[in-house]
Parts: sequence; C-alpha cells; structure tokens
Amino acid sequence: MKEKDSLREVKLEYFAFADKGKKMPLDSGQELGPITLAYETYGQLNKEKSNAILIVHALSGDAHAAGFYKGETKPGWWDNMIGPGKAFDTDKYFVICSNVMGGCRGSTGPSSDNPETGKPFALDFPMITIKDMVRAQKNLVDYLGIDKLLSVAGGSMGGMLVLQWFASFPECIRSAVPIATALKHSPQQIAFDEVGRQAVMADPDWLGGNYYGKAQPQRGLAVARMIGHITYMSDKSMEKKFSRKLKEEKYTFKFRTDFEVEGYLRYQGDNFVKRFDANSYLYITKAMDYFDLSEGKLFLGNKKYDTRFLVIAFKSDWLYPSYQSQEIVRQLKSKHVDVTYCEIPSTYGHDAFLLEVDEQTRLVKHFLLKTYNSIKND
Amino acid sequence: MKEKDSLREVKLEYFAFADKGKKMPLDSGQELGPITLAYETYGQLNKEKSNAILIVHALSGDAHAAGFYKGETKPGWWDNMIGPGKAFDTDKYFVICSNVMGGCRGSTGPSSDNPETGKPFALDFPMITIKDMVRAQKNLVDYLGIDKLLSVAGGSMGGMLVLQWFASFPECIRSAVPIATALKHSPQQIAFDEVGRQAVMADPDWLGGNYYGKAQPQRGLAVARMIGHITYMSDKSMEKKFSRKLKEEKYTFKFRTDFEVEGYLRYQGDNFVKRFDANSYLYITKAMDYFDLSEGKLFLGNKKYDTRFLVIAFKSDWLYPSYQSQEIVRQLKSKHVDVTYCEIPSTYGHDAFLLEVDEQTRLVKHFLLKTYNSIKND
Repeated sequence: MKEKDSLREVKLEYFAFADKGKKMPLDSGQELGPITLAYETYGQLNKEKSNAILIVHALSGDAHAAGFYKGETKPGWWDNMIGPGKAFDTDKYFVICSNVMGGCRGSTGPSSDNPETGKPFALDFPMITIKDMVRAQKNLVDYLGIDKLLSVAGGSMGGMLVLQWFASFPECIRSAVPIATALKHSPQQIAFDEVGRQAVMADPDWLGGNYYGKAQPQRGLAVARMIGHITYMSDKSMEKKFSRKLKEEKYTFKFRTDFEVEGYLRYQGDNFVKRFDANSYLYITKAMDYFDLSEGKLFLGNKKYDTRFLVIAFKSDWLYPSYQSQEIVRQLKSKHVDVTYCEIPSTYGHDAFLLEVDEQTRLVKHFLLKTYNSIKND
Repeated sequence: MKEKDSLREVKLEYFAFADKGKKMPLDSGQELGPITLAYETYGQLNKEKSNAILIVHALSGDAHAAGFYKGETKPGWWDNMIGPGKAFDTDKYFVICSNVMGGCRGSTGPSSDNPETGKPFALDFPMITIKDMVRAQKNLVDYLGIDKLLSVAGGSMGGMLVLQWFASFPECIRSAVPIATALKHSPQQIAFDEVGRQAVMADPDWLGGNYYGKAQPQRGLAVARMIGHITYMSDKSMEKKFSRKLKEEKYTFKFRTDFEVEGYLRYQGDNFVKRFDANSYLYITKAMDYFDLSEGKLFLGNKKYDTRFLVIAFKSDWLYPSYQSQEIVRQLKSKHVDVTYCEIPSTYGHDAFLLEVDEQTRLVKHFLLKTYNSIKND
C-alpha cells in the first residue's frame, strides 16, 4: 500500500456542557457538571450531515487521532487509518474523535478542578462507566448537529464504547466497528487491571489520590504501564522484536538492564508517566472492568436494529482473545443484526489494531463505502 | 485415586559447606562461602544408595516439599506427589528436597548475614545462576554419600534446575523429570520477571535492598506476586474459579474490591510477603532470566548420555508454553537421549504442575519404576 498523506495543522477543540442545574446523571447515582470534552474533527461534514464518523479511543488514547499539530512531528495515534484516502477517508467523511470523560487529555477527569472546591477532584471525582462516557459523547455529537452517525469505530476500550453506543443509541448509528474488544472483561482482564491499580496505589507518592501540585506517583504508574505493554504484545512479536538480545555484550550480574526487552519496558513506563494522569488510569480501568453488555444487555434499547457491524479480532491477541469477538458476533446474530466478522492472522497481539493497517484498511474502507452508499439508495 | 497418607513429623535440616579458604566460585566471577542449604529428606536411602531422588523447587518454593512439621496442619508444597505410595513413593525411594541458594527459607541468600560485616548481605550478595544453585546442591548430594541420583525432578524453575543437573553432572543422574519448564526464558517471560522486580524496587521501603531490620517492601513485593499469580493460572481456570463474581451484591463505585478475583489477588499478594524475602525474589528471578541451555548448551558435558528423560507440559500453560517443552525434547532427541514427552490436557495453566496429581502420578510412578528396575537388571 502506498504511503498516504497525513492531515496538517489539526487542532484540539473543547466542548463544554452540563452546566449548573443541568448536571449529567451518572450510573453511580452521582452527577457531574460542568463537563468539558476535548475533541478533534477531520474532513468536512456534508450538507445532509450523513458522513460523520466517531472514532473512540483506547485506555491511554486521546482526541488526537490523526494528523499533525502545527510544528509537531508526531502524528495522532491512528494516523495510519485516518486521513485523505485512508481507511477513514477524510476526503469523503467527517471524522470526530473525542477524549473520554474521566481522561486527562483535555476532558473533565479526576485531575480537573472541582468547581465546588477550586482544587483538583482527585478521588472526589465520581466513578464513571463506559455508558457515562458514551452519554457525554452523545452530547458532543448532538452539539455538532449530527442526528445519525455513519459509523462509530474503535479498538480495545474504544470497541467497548462502540458497543455501548449501539446499546444506548442504536437509532443514532448506521454502522459500528468494534475491534479487538469484548462484551465484558474476563477475570483475567480484570486481574491485569487490578494489578495495575494496585501498583499505582502502592506508590506512596499517590497520597490517596491527592498528589496534584506534588510529585506524580510515577513509579507505580510506570509499573502499571509495563504490565500493560506485555499484554499488548504477543509472545511471538516479543520474540521477533527482542529475542534475548542484550543491551551490553554480556550479563551485567547486577540489577541493571541486561536484556533489550527490559530497557524497552522501562522506557515505555517512564514515557507514559509524562503524558498520563495516574488517577485517570484508575478511573478508566475501573470503567472497563465494570463494563458488561453480555447476555442480551447489548439490546437494552429493544428497538428494531438496522445498524450494520464489522467486528474485527486478531489471532495473536491474548488480552482480548478472538473468542470474545466471536461472542459479540453471536449476540448480534441472535437478533438478526447485519454483522461481518473478520479474524486477522496477525502476530502483533493486541497492538495489532494500531499496526495492521493494510488489512484493516481494506475491510473498513469497503465496509464504510457500502454503508454510505446504502444511504444514497434509501 | 484414593487419598494417600502424608508423612508425619518431617524436619528441616541444614548442610553447611564452602568454609573459609574453600569458598564456592560463582558464574559471575565472584565467590561465596560459607554456604548453608536447608533441606529435608523423606524415606530411607538403601544400602546400594541407588534409590535417591532430588526434588527441585520453583521460584517461591522451599525445602518443605512433603509431610507435616510437628504440630502443623499445612503440608509441604508437593505433598500430593511425595509420600507413601505416591508418585515419589517414600516407601521405595529416598527423597531429598533442598531450598536453593539465594533463597530465604533457610539457605544462604541476600537476607543472610555477610560474614565480613556481620550484617545481612542485601545487594552485596553476589548474583547467582541456576548453575550455581545446582553446584551447591551437588555438594549436598555428595555429603549425603550419593554418587548417582535415581532422578532429579521439578516444575517451573525446578525444571530448569533439572536441566542444569543434566548439563553439569550427566553422569550423576539416572533420570530427569523437567516439568512445565524451558531451556531459556523468552522475552515475554523475562518481561514478566522484570516488571515484578521493578515493582519491588519502586517501593520506597526497598531502600536499595537495605530494608533488613526495617519494614519489608511489602507493597512492591505484593504487586510482583499478583502479576505472578495471573501468569500461573489460565484464562479458563480464572473464568471457572471467579468468573465476574462480586464480593458484594453490586458494584461499589469506589476503589474497593468489587470482584472476587481482585480479593484473591490481594490476598495472595499480602500472604506472600509474610513468607518471602523481597531481595531473594530479585535474585532468583534474575537467575531464571539468565538461564539459557538452548542451542546445544544442554550438552556441555559432552559425555555419553544414559540419562532417561520424562518431559511434561500442560496444554493451558501460557507462561511456559508447551512449545518450550517440545524444544527440550527436540534437543534431547538430537543427541539420541531416551526421552518420553507428555502434554497433559489440563486447564489449570502453569499451576497444573502442582494440581494435576492423578495424571502426573501415573506418568512419574511408572517412569521411576522402570528406571529403578533397569538398575537391578544392570
């Protein structure tokens, strides 16, 4: 596949809602407001407002999905999939990506100031769910004047948001692309999240969440991220990338970095703490663990469903194994929803949703076009 | 299978060697002495001294492999496999188990006093390798007057010690039973160990290893153990044991223990720190990561090999996947070593070597008997 151009000078924007007296009710029984969502848009909304696609991000993602900020050299996290002529073709579609509520990349979250105290919420931030995140995004989509999205697409936690969009607002999405995701976390997935949370909370710099203005609980968050990184790769992809290659010529016989894989993990851990808030890590992983649309809960709307699905899984993904995607397909089929399932024979593990560009591009491009054309033929 | 009796009133014993002037040289180039190994024995050594079996333990194991200490109700860690009439039949064989050097359960390790300072070694303890551990065990076996062991058997890291016994002293072992193990750690296995070490070293109570007489780095070590526990189980066995069962009736919407699997992990983590030294955890995991008998290094002795092998793996073990055991078999076959391979269709994951008693008993019992009978026919 030829290298495609990326978008230039994309901008982060902010949408505020749920002001005083109109706070948003949450699944926990609490309420939150005012709320800001950071978001970006790429491409042009057509006059029928029928070409809008919402991209939803994973645990550590943000609104910067594509293109370059002015003067920067690092593109958005899904730039290989979003742009002119790409899978999510910005010459054709209007693409929106918003940072989730509870996050730390411009949206209201535990690091935001609590209007009641003027200080960061920390653990006074209410617990949020994937459903709450979607409810907030619906406000943004309404604000943008879009009644019905052409598609909602995303991988990992993003896939959960896709499924929740369908469960909460099936009439508002023509199609859905949940990638490398699940209807619910298995105990193994919960366990990995919990160890990450314990690592953060074990860091004395965490201070019960009240570390703002002081040191971040960097060491704990770095450990959490290191655990994450192991689960994002596969045994095979690690073997290919690192094997047992040493940093130096021979064993140090000290507690230093002997193996390249150790250096890689430390680097990933140290890097992550610079851009991510530890409390957001706690809140978002908890939201993922709480998420459960199994056993028919995907169809709470109990409507007639005309949403089309493209479900994608990856063979070597052991964090979100393909049997979980197959369960999504099974549920959808039971309600006669139009669903295409594809298991890509990748060796990248869970990271494949960010790396397997060619195969995903072919699938997504064709799927979106078919959905888009079906409107015109309506 | 009928419930078998366990041994009563077993005792921990100590063997000291490598006194002044006779320190043991180590792979790191350093030397260590005096060295104490804690060990236990079960059954009687026959007059030909031909019925001795050495049991080698895993990362967190110790010399207490079978039976009960006087007045205690918790048996040794492999009691279901070692005892009268069991797989390692103490009516027939003389079974030895020794805590590894570097450990913290009676053997010389980083928590032992450094004779030069009178204070615990901490990180002044020299780095040790699996080969060093085996060299120390050879001293114990010599001291017990045994020229040739009937067998060496163990799972996980124990399996590495088994393989190292063969590489270092092939003429001293009639048979070998490496279970759920590998010729070398893959980058994924190194990565899990490294994250565990980072969790320990991130704990400010670790104090660069000099925490003796103060607080243990409990939180870090607990996180390391929690990571370990996830890797010891399988996706399936966690699903069966916990599914998404809650501790209370509904979500707490707090950072409390919502799911049973979270409670289990916390319990395992908290429990482990009571019985294990954090520095030993660092040293032993490093020894495992350094271990590498791949690519012919299993045959460094370059002797004629009459050792018989029984290699056991478990289908759902993703920490030591069966392809690693198959590689051991391939290596052995290339030198025409007599090897039987069995992959047990267990769902327990890596823990299976401690839990799949019936199947392992059948395999091991028959294998040992055949080996023992072959001596008599010599």
